[in-house]
Amino acid sequence: MLKKNQLYEGKAKKVFAVDDGDLLIVEYKDDVTAGNGVKKSVITGKGVINNRITNHLMQILEKAGVPTHFVKELSPSETLVKLVKIIPLEVIVRNIAAGSLAKRLGLEEGTPLSKTVLEYCYKDDALGDPMVNDYHIAAMGWASSEELEKIAAYSFKINETLSEHLKEAGVRLIDFKLEFGRLPCGDVILADEISPDTCRFWDLKTGEKLDKDRFRLDLGGVNEAYNEVLKRLLGC
Amino acid sequence: MLKKNQLYEGKAKKVFAVDDGDLLIVEYKDDVTAGNGVKKSVITGKGVINNRITNHLMQILEKAGVPTHFVKELSPSETLVKLVKIIPLEVIVRNIAAGSLAKRLGLEEGTPLSKTVLEYCYKDDALGDPMVNDYHIAAMGWASSEELEKIAAYSFKINETLSEHLKEAGVRLIDFKLEFGRLPCGDVILADEISPDTCRFWDLKTGEKLDKDRFRLDLGGVNEAYNEVLKRLLGC
Repeated sequence: MLKKNQLYEGKAKKVFAVDDGDLLIVEYKDDVTAGNGVKKSVITGKGVINNRITNHLMQILEKAGVPTHFVKELSPSETLVKLVKIIPLEVIVRNIAAGSLAKRLGLEEGTPLSKTVLEYCYKDDALGDPMVNDYHIAAMGWASSEELEKIAAYSFKINETLSEHLKEAGVRLIDFKLEFGRLPCGDVILADEISPDTCRFWDLKTGEKLDKDRFRLDLGGVNEAYNEVLKRLLGC
Repeated sequence: MLKKNQLYEGKAKKVFAVDDGDLLIVEYKDDVTAGNGVKKSVITGKGVINNRITNHLMQILEKAGVPTHFVKELSPSETLVKLVKIIPLEVIVRNIAAGSLAKRLGLEEGTPLSKTVLEYCYKDDALGDPMVNDYHIAAMGWASSEELEKIAAYSFKINETLSEHLKEAGVRLIDFKLEFGRLPCGDVILADEISPDTCRFWDLKTGEKLDKDRFRLDLGGVNEAYNEVLKRLLGC
């Protein structure tokens, strides 16, 4: 597979074309950002960890019946994925109140939600990724109602599958962010990444944070926490 | 009907008990506020105008099959209504992008929405009435899914009925806020008010603002605009 020109550089990943026009290479960066890019740093080794965790979890999800963009891990920080047209929504799945939800609803961080909460945010850095609902999505044409139904069903399935899998590794899945894309045939599949950058992971026993909140909140031990998740999930 | 003790004083209305425990008296105030109460003033005569416009529109809605709390207009600024337990949601119905939606999604004010948009905000001044979705409402137990379905159906029906009625009066219904409540039997009915304080009304031909935006945006002529809406709807 020939790696060709860079198509895009995001906050945490670069994307390259390959000689097969239906595929892409994703390269994970060590850069870490928070607050819509306002806070920035570099965590050496983060790209490799997130690539490996994402690929592990994507394969777990494929086995559970959720179609993903994952094709093949090419190197510690590079993965071959299917080309999709990204649906411009961040899908947030929440089991426990934390972060922006806790603040917005005046809930203490760590409060269990009696039902899983899905939120959609419109992916637009300039607007600060505003929260939107099904009606905004329909009115703006960002996804059809059939696509949104599929996205919601996949999101619940992903939550169920990952919560169970992570629990076995001693990790509690608090909340996470997903992105979906359309294949050229129109099918909706899971894209992007699933890593400590995009999930809140708490130690099942101690409640210790094992995710990007260590960076957001200046708790230190970011690299160690990311490595701990990798070790628990992949044993190395 | 004996007016008894004051039960509550809000930003624009006072509520009094009456000798019939299933009813209340609402008294409309001339106070006007914006920005969650930060900006305040008094517009002499506003209470009377809003009481009369609300009662007129509530009766139009009753005829169209939407149950409301309206019982009887008692005086120019006082109305007898059914006692309900208010569901703690502001329901916002939008036909044209304006106000917070235009800002949040980066749309020019006045952009028609391809489909009607419903939004829910959790009624909590201290939290700034945050926007929430069906999942938050279910998780927090603010309304059952059956109640929310009914609220959405009523809101669309109200939009259809009022848009048509206002159009005949030369007024374009841009967006508006509703509140619903539960009767002791559990039935959900429309409560609160429908007035230039809670709706955006634009002149159908000129686009001139005939609502609280004249106060919010310091455009002047607030009283004149409110009176114009009253005159067009009730002929006096």
